[in-house]
Amino acid sequence: MGELLCGVDLGGTKLSAGLVTRAGKVLERSVAYDHRSKPEPDVIIQIRDMIRALLAKRGLTEESLIGIGMTFPGHLRFREGIAITSSNFRGWKREFPIRDSLQRHFRLRTIVDNDANAQGFAEFKFGAGVGTGSMLFMTISTGIGVGIILEGKIYRGMTGTAGEFGHTIVEPSSTIRCGCGNYGCLMAHASGLGLPQLVKQKLEAGLQTQLRFARPEDATGENNKTGLELNDELCRAVVEECADYAGIGLYNLFQVFNPPAIVLGGGLMNWGEAYFRRIKDKFYALAGDMLFDPIKIVRSAIGADAGLVGAAALLLE
Amino acid sequence: MGELLCGVDLGGTKLSAGLVTRAGKVLERSVAYDHRSKPEPDVIIQIRDMIRALLAKRGLTEESLIGIGMTFPGHLRFREGIAITSSNFRGWKREFPIRDSLQRHFRLRTIVDNDANAQGFAEFKFGAGVGTGSMLFMTISTGIGVGIILEGKIYRGMTGTAGEFGHTIVEPSSTIRCGCGNYGCLMAHASGLGLPQLVKQKLEAGLQTQLRFARPEDATGENNKTGLELNDELCRAVVEECADYAGIGLYNLFQVFNPPAIVLGGGLMNWGEAYFRRIKDKFYALAGDMLFDPIKIVRSAIGADAGLVGAAALLLE
Repeated sequence: MGELLCGVDLGGTKLSAGLVTRAGKVLERSVAYDHRSKPEPDVIIQIRDMIRALLAKRGLTEESLIGIGMTFPGHLRFREGIAITSSNFRGWKREFPIRDSLQRHFRLRTIVDNDANAQGFAEFKFGAGVGTGSMLFMTISTGIGVGIILEGKIYRGMTGTAGEFGHTIVEPSSTIRCGCGNYGCLMAHASGLGLPQLVKQKLEAGLQTQLRFARPEDATGENNKTGLELNDELCRAVVEECADYAGIGLYNLFQVFNPPAIVLGGGLMNWGEAYFRRIKDKFYALAGDMLFDPIKIVRSAIGADAGLVGAAALLLE
Repeated sequence: MGELLCGVDLGGTKLSAGLVTRAGKVLERSVAYDHRSKPEPDVIIQIRDMIRALLAKRGLTEESLIGIGMTFPGHLRFREGIAITSSNFRGWKREFPIRDSLQRHFRLRTIVDNDANAQGFAEFKFGAGVGTGSMLFMTISTGIGVGIILEGKIYRGMTGTAGEFGHTIVEPSSTIRCGCGNYGCLMAHASGLGLPQLVKQKLEAGLQTQLRFARPEDATGENNKTGLELNDELCRAVVEECADYAGIGLYNLFQVFNPPAIVLGGGLMNWGEAYFRRIKDKFYALAGDMLFDPIKIVRSAIGADAGLVGAAALLLE
């Protein structure tokens, strides 16, 4: 048996593969952006070839590997390794056996899990959650997902879709629609996908902006960050509203799990310290005198590599 | 060691103690209603005497008991057996060592847990959750609580306050205030404590009622049930609104836990089949095509004895 982990982080925008040590250090990596338009069998072939090239580059064979851990940005049947659906890969057939399709090219143990689970497990093993025993990881980027780690194990539920916390309803009479079809999901109010609708509302309410949005649909986490740097009125209002809903999400997680630690990650954390502070302020205002033991609320320590390291770390669960 | 369980269900209105078999059958019981006004040490003495009287009635000694399991309707430090606070016993001192206060009168293992946890565990061991492996129990009565059973064990979190799901925020701009001080908690919109405010809103909106509420503050689950039997316009509207929020709660639990089963209990389930059906309809409408495996959504099978049987069942965890 080998001593190296192979991680594959299959995202909607970026596909990364890497060789990772048992200590969570990325030794070698390769990145692709042209996978999204391909049919699912071709993506598997692309991943196979990326892994082979990584091994070749280091003069290794698959015997050097403990296994392959991979993330999938969507709903999975975890035990069966089946990708059910993903908003990132709408062209893929439903119930695609993603794990076995990759595994048949190697003689290696292969695990495929949800990206939030893998990122959360990376924080637990190597990052901000080390030593916590149990923790939640909430990622806020295009959507919102939660990785639930209870006593050192990822909690996945019946099918494998536990932690789809972004779809919990926090504003039943909302006019902001989520990709799932419902209104008032947490992710519609606090993550990237809701930004166009939120910006539209703020513009209609008369807020001023220096940003040259051709259309509200162009609003993204990135241009909103630019706006923050310019102290833009509209962008500040958007960030504050998103932070308040994220704080409600954090609080709801607290009441459900009473966890010792919650780690926050994902692209919107780049909005900076004031955003993070407002999330925490909202949390503590709601928790009030119902918080009987200190809870650790911290930002991801791994950052950009969390997906890749998390994918690899799945082999250490 | 004995073969019988002793259960004590300490509620805000009713205090029950009973001798229960390992199969969940109540052999002997005693009930009191005069405990609520007493200081906490006197309640412990009352419980001690109830247990002694139950044993004496059957000609038994404490050697016949496996232990004592007890519920507490509030926040607990589970491992330490400490009652932190309870809206039902506002006069009690904070951080009262309830478990040890009772245990020192016997030579028996003693466990004190939250009422929703105990009721949920009763359903898991003897009721609607038998054979599920993992399940959630949501009780809807004066408030809302959830018992979380994962792979046969009660999940309690860091302090012991996990499952305080009634305090999750589902309506941030709500004008309905919860006992916790926040607005828009699930329990403020879907359980007994929110009924007066809900009735007031409906009366102000011009809905008609045949009920002789002296004041909206008198609204309870019971008189609302009477109204349902009279096909009262206001009572029907109240039940429908509460059911819709309960359905949102159920859906939020589903997205977080992806559980194979959710069991519903508590006093408001007496509102009947149409209420239960509307909760489920709301759940399935929201879950839509995100439900990849069948989930069992059923009513409590144990009913009125769930607290007492659950208290006893804590000894079998």
